Amino acid sequence: MQRRPEGRQADQIRPLTIKTGVQRSAAGSVLISTGGTRVICSASVEERVPGWMKYENRGWVTAEYAMLPGSGDSRIRRGPNARGTEIQRLIARSLRGVVDLPALNGFTITVDCDVLEADGGTRTASITGGWVALSLACKHLVAKGKLKKWPITGQVAAVSVGMVQDRALLDLDYREDSRADTDMNVIGTPDGMLIEVQGTAEGKLFGRDELNDMVDLAQKGIAELAVAQVAAIEAG
Amino acid sequence: MQRRPEGRQADQIRPLTIKTGVQRSAAGSVLISTGGTRVICSASVEERVPGWMKYENRGWVTAEYAMLPGSGDSRIRRGPNARGTEIQRLIARSLRGVVDLPALNGFTITVDCDVLEADGGTRTASITGGWVALSLACKHLVAKGKLKKWPITGQVAAVSVGMVQDRALLDLDYREDSRADTDMNVIGTPDGMLIEVQGTAEGKLFGRDELNDMVDLAQKGIAELAVAQVAAIEAG
Amino acid sequence: MQRRPEGRQADQIRPLTIKTGVQRSAAGSVLISTGGTRVICSASVEERVPGWMKYENRGWVTAEYAMLPGSGDSRIRRGPNARGTEIQRLIARSLRGVVDLPALNGFTITVDCDVLEADGGTRTASITGGWVALSLACKHLVAKGKLKKWPITGQVAAVSVGMVQDRALLDLDYREDSRADTDMNVIGTPDGMLIEVQGTAEGKLFGRDELNDMVDLAQKGIAELAVAQVAAIEAG
Amino acid sequence: MQRRPEGRQADQIRPLTIKTGVQRSAAGSVLISTGGTRVICSASVEERVPGWMKYENRGWVTAEYAMLPGSGDSRIRRGPNARGTEIQRLIARSLRGVVDLPALNGFTITVDCDVLEADGGTRTASITGGWVALSLACKHLVAKGKLKKWPITGQVAAVSVGMVQDRALLDLDYREDSRADTDMNVIGTPDGMLIEVQGTAEGKLFGRDELNDMVDLAQKGIAELAVAQVAAIEAG
Amino acid sequence: MQRRPEGRQADQIRPLTIKTGVQRSAAGSVLISTGGTRVICSASVEERVPGWMKYENRGWVTAEYAMLPGSGDSRIRRGPNARGTEIQRLIARSLRGVVDLPALNGFTITVDCDVLEADGGTRTASITGGWVALSLACKHLVAKGKLKKWPITGQVAAVSVGMVQDRALLDLDYREDSRADTDMNVIGTPDGMLIEVQGTAEGKLFGRDELNDMVDLAQKGIAELAVAQVAAIEAG
Amino acid sequence: MQRRPEGRQADQIRPLTIKTGVQRSAAGSVLISTGGTRVICSASVEERVPGWMKYENRGWVTAEYAMLPGSGDSRIRRGPNARGTEIQRLIARSLRGVVDLPALNGFTITVDCDVLEADGGTRTASITGGWVALSLACKHLVAKGKLKKWPITGQVAAVSVGMVQDRALLDLDYREDSRADTDMNVIGTPDGMLIEVQGTAEGKLFGRDELNDMVDLAQKGIAELAVAQVAAIEAG
Repeated sequence: MQRRPEGRQADQIRPLTIKTGVQRSAAGSVLISTGGTRVICSASVEERVPGWMKYENRGWVTAEYAMLPGSGDSRIRRGPNARGTEIQRLIARSLRGVVDLPALNGFTITVDCDVLEADGGTRTASITGGWVALSLACKHLVAKGKLKKWPITGQVAAVSVGMVQDRALLDLDYREDSRADTDMNVIGTPDGMLIEVQGTAEGKLFGRDELNDMVDLAQKGIAELAVAQVAAIEAG
Repeated sequence: MQRRPEGRQADQIRPLTIKTGVQRSAAGSVLISTGGTRVICSASVEERVPGWMKYENRGWVTAEYAMLPGSGDSRIRRGPNARGTEIQRLIARSLRGVVDLPALNGFTITVDCDVLEADGGTRTASITGGWVALSLACKHLVAKGKLKKWPITGQVAAVSVGMVQDRALLDLDYREDSRADTDMNVIGTPDGMLIEVQGTAEGKLFGRDELNDMVDLAQKGIAELAVAQVAAIEAG
Repeated sequence: MQRRPEGRQADQIRPLTIKTGVQRSAAGSVLISTGGTRVICSASVEERVPGWMKYENRGWVTAEYAMLPGSGDSRIRRGPNARGTEIQRLIARSLRGVVDLPALNGFTITVDCDVLEADGGTRTASITGGWVALSLACKHLVAKGKLKKWPITGQVAAVSVGMVQDRALLDLDYREDSRADTDMNVIGTPDGMLIEVQGTAEGKLFGRDELNDMVDLAQKGIAELAVAQVAAIEAG
Repeated sequence: MQRRPEGRQADQIRPLTIKTGVQRSAAGSVLISTGGTRVICSASVEERVPGWMKYENRGWVTAEYAMLPGSGDSRIRRGPNARGTEIQRLIARSLRGVVDLPALNGFTITVDCDVLEADGGTRTASITGGWVALSLACKHLVAKGKLKKWPITGQVAAVSVGMVQDRALLDLDYREDSRADTDMNVIGTPDGMLIEVQGTAEGKLFGRDELNDMVDLAQKGIAELAVAQVAAIEAG
Repeated sequence: MQRRPEGRQADQIRPLTIKTGVQRSAAGSVLISTGGTRVICSASVEERVPGWMKYENRGWVTAEYAMLPGSGDSRIRRGPNARGTEIQRLIARSLRGVVDLPALNGFTITVDCDVLEADGGTRTASITGGWVALSLACKHLVAKGKLKKWPITGQVAAVSVGMVQDRALLDLDYREDSRADTDMNVIGTPDGMLIEVQGTAEGKLFGRDELNDMVDLAQKGIAELAVAQVAAIEAG
Repeated sequence: MQRRPEGRQADQIRPLTIKTGVQRSAAGSVLISTGGTRVICSASVEERVPGWMKYENRGWVTAEYAMLPGSGDSRIRRGPNARGTEIQRLIARSLRGVVDLPALNGFTITVDCDVLEADGGTRTASITGGWVALSLACKHLVAKGKLKKWPITGQVAAVSVGMVQDRALLDLDYREDSRADTDMNVIGTPDGMLIEVQGTAEGKLFGRDELNDMVDLAQKGIAELAVAQVAAIEAG
């Protein structure tokens, strides 16, 4: 059996750091590094809500995702594209899944995820880091007396898993990801609940057993990522 | 326990018809009706491939998805939007999952899915109907001698499932969908293999048991949809 | 003299059906078939008027026109284009010509014309079918008590005519249209009044006698189309 | 009966001048003034044809139309709009109607019509002036030996007519145009042939007699405009 | 030493005319000709301010710049482009530099600069002519009693200078400009104050002495242009 | 006299660091920090040139500039805007001013400048850092044998200066910049030559003496920045 890069076990996540405060002006900001992937996550607060929800007595959480031009092997063009649109919808949906929107009434928080370096798993790193940035921004709003109530109802982290040569592997890097037969992103909480599961066969189709193996691995990874998230917020 | 609309069982799909040949000019075309949802799926063949894959000796399958302005309760604006972008990427990916692209060398098949009436499950109906339109277009290419080899390697159908008031339900209509805590789209083959699984918590998070119940229901539904697909192609 | 396809006389329109209620959610909807041309016309009502006419105490009628990608011989790209822009302005202008806009005060009705199959005359079929959809939507508004007064002041139908090999022909199909030296669209009422006349020399220029012959034929056709419109509304 | 502005007769065109050579760099350029309407028409030659007609051994004539921001009573925004799109298609179609495209093989001539001042009839002035600019550009190509054969097969001019208070009037200015019940643009040749006829009821519908009266007036006007076109080319 | 075109001295501007009233509908309009460069400058007044400055009790001055398609040697495409964006920002900034915006409270004046013929120096001609159009529009507003106070605080003109073969030259034409090692635009007042200085090395870099020589020449030119501006306003 | 923030002298630049290698995939990348301003500069190499210069036997250098959404006090929207367009043209022009384009034959280098934190002077920091990234990318190309000849002909750095309360100040931070009467960006070489000078009066106009004082300060600053550039390249 082929060894994983840097000798990782099948069920082992990549080295992880979450550094807070990388943008002094943003309400919450982090630089999350997971292996060779680095993402700047920044949560900005605006005292308004989108026009279409004006009379709903709720706040809103949205997200944007982009890759910096120098983040990949060849230069990445700026501007909206279908992949990015899909990813930012996923990030926003996942974060909203653990936010009490009525408690955010009157505020929109935008979580911007800009990939500084890409080596696989940028969308899951964006969610894991984005949750920390969002939490820091909410801490800031509560500290300033702008929110009466803590609006975050749960802790969310995300990780990719995949089937590579019939073996389920946790937290794929770019090289593994491009050889995977199935690629799955799992978004969940440290206590084993799920917010989003997206598995896609890229080569061979996958069966129920493989689905189960991949979700098992992912839930192990999410629990570990959650520990680092909490540490970062306490430090931040 | 609240009854489903029209007295359906939890594990029962909606009434289904697949009518072929609705556009004489298109290589393959169907009108798929599943309950109140109706989608026109049309497969067009062009003798060229996208520029970026010019030297790869493969063909290509892509998809576009749109809702006709009068398909919903209030008028739907034309033009690209993030939800549609995400859906058409899903349709294309699912169909490509069962196509031998080298066997399509030199051809691009575009599967256009235009929703005539929307009552939930338009993306899964698009995949189920789209696979029939794609197959008809390939039949046409083989019959004309343009393809030497049958390029479709498997049969694909799709269905939505969801958790509504703690009960797993198969093939949600619009009203059920808007009340569901989890909404899942499953794309698979009649023999139980999976191409794509996308489950999203909209209200309460979901656990592993619920994930399993939903996939069970979906696979039952996919097997039934597959029978209607085969009948339509034989008739078409 | 070359015979017309299917043995039609020079002054004979193509077989015509107008089916109502093809989209349950739309206020008014029809599928109009004229020969090989089929268009879905859908009238949607919104309780608002465009910003620029806010203080004018009028309602508004507008139209959009598009071809479904599989409606023609080769795949038709989605999205705005100059031809479609010109056609939808013509449809809207023609319908507004017989609407009492003050009587529609506060409402915008959008008539969407989506071509399912194109075999010549799609813009005139859109107007003929669009008038039926618009009338059904107004019936609906009056029945619901939202309009006090019947807002439609006249009956409008449209047909194409052309000079093909020095012979004036009524209701050209695609093949005739592409061989025509002059192509003319006439929009009028059953009692012989005119709303719009658009004649264009494509090959040879045309003289006054030819102009007259073409308008004669068109007015005969409009009278026949009008009968089918009334029957459809009564049935719908 | 209300008098026309400046005491014009019903069948009289506005004072007309066509000045050539207003842009030294353009192959052909004119400033056409008709009453208070002034349009800069410029014909530019490029030694290439549009991609879609590469193998057709023909040249091409196209047109663009825009209003300068200060040309009207309130500032006019720059950029494409539906009205302009429709007008430039009309200009191009009318000019192509008298061009032998194979004789232009390898060249595209773009006729740009920019309205300096607008007082009604800008589209017809664009066609009348555009034909002169196009002719000058062709003269230039023939003089340089780039064209072997004179590519223009006929002379085209255009004028508007309309029904104002039940009276047919020739060459409407803006005030008349905005009060007209029917507005018609007629494009033809000095010898009475027609290239395009576009009549639109804006208020009351129009009958066959009115159609005839308007076309009569227009043909008188076209003959007069044609004299000025010839004089300008001879002077230019 | 190579002579300048038409025998001009190094410190001599091109023949200059400023004709006012070229668009009767615009509040202020001029055609400025400087050598072979001709620009239509038109100032339009709107009784509103941009949304973002609604509560600031000020007016606004903005500018747009475009080249007519036939203004250059080869046809120039319409529509926004980076060069034009940069130029119109420069024009607007320069004019705002001498406007008392609070005195314009409630009004936006847009100065549109459309290049009829381009032979170098179009951006500086736009500023010189634009200031005249702006002044005429303000005269009009004061005459109509819409402004209580004269809002223009200074006189602005602009000219280009450059280093050509190690010689500083004033008011470059296109041929000189394309051979210049440094190209500089200077915007100032007749009494020697500066509003904007933009110098760019295109070939060889430039030193402090050259910077000084160029600004000297430019200030001489600005003083001469200012005389013509005043004469035009008095005549206009 | 009011003191500068952090006790800086009028002729003192802000604390400066230039860190190389921040994006492993990019040919050259730096993070430049000058006071509170931080910019990621990344130079990507592509083996192709823009279409319009295909036959010119040259390479090309271009630049893009953007602010990350969290870089400022309130969230900055993504996407092109007029200010950014102007800045990236300035960056590209300045860098091309010291590149031997024929020596780069066949290659395009894009220098992307993404502002991580903005506190004034982001465009000048982009040029100073961009020159380092560009140099690193060229080193890489020479090391790989792709370039025969060192293509960079000079060293470029940039700094802002301004008039604040009648005092010339070097290297303005955001607070100073927003209070400045004149804002000037100077781009030059360590030996006192100039590539671009852009001075703009924002409040009071400026005279020749002030112009001279500001350029003096800027040239002092450029010489200091140049030392740090060289140190970074040696370390990188």
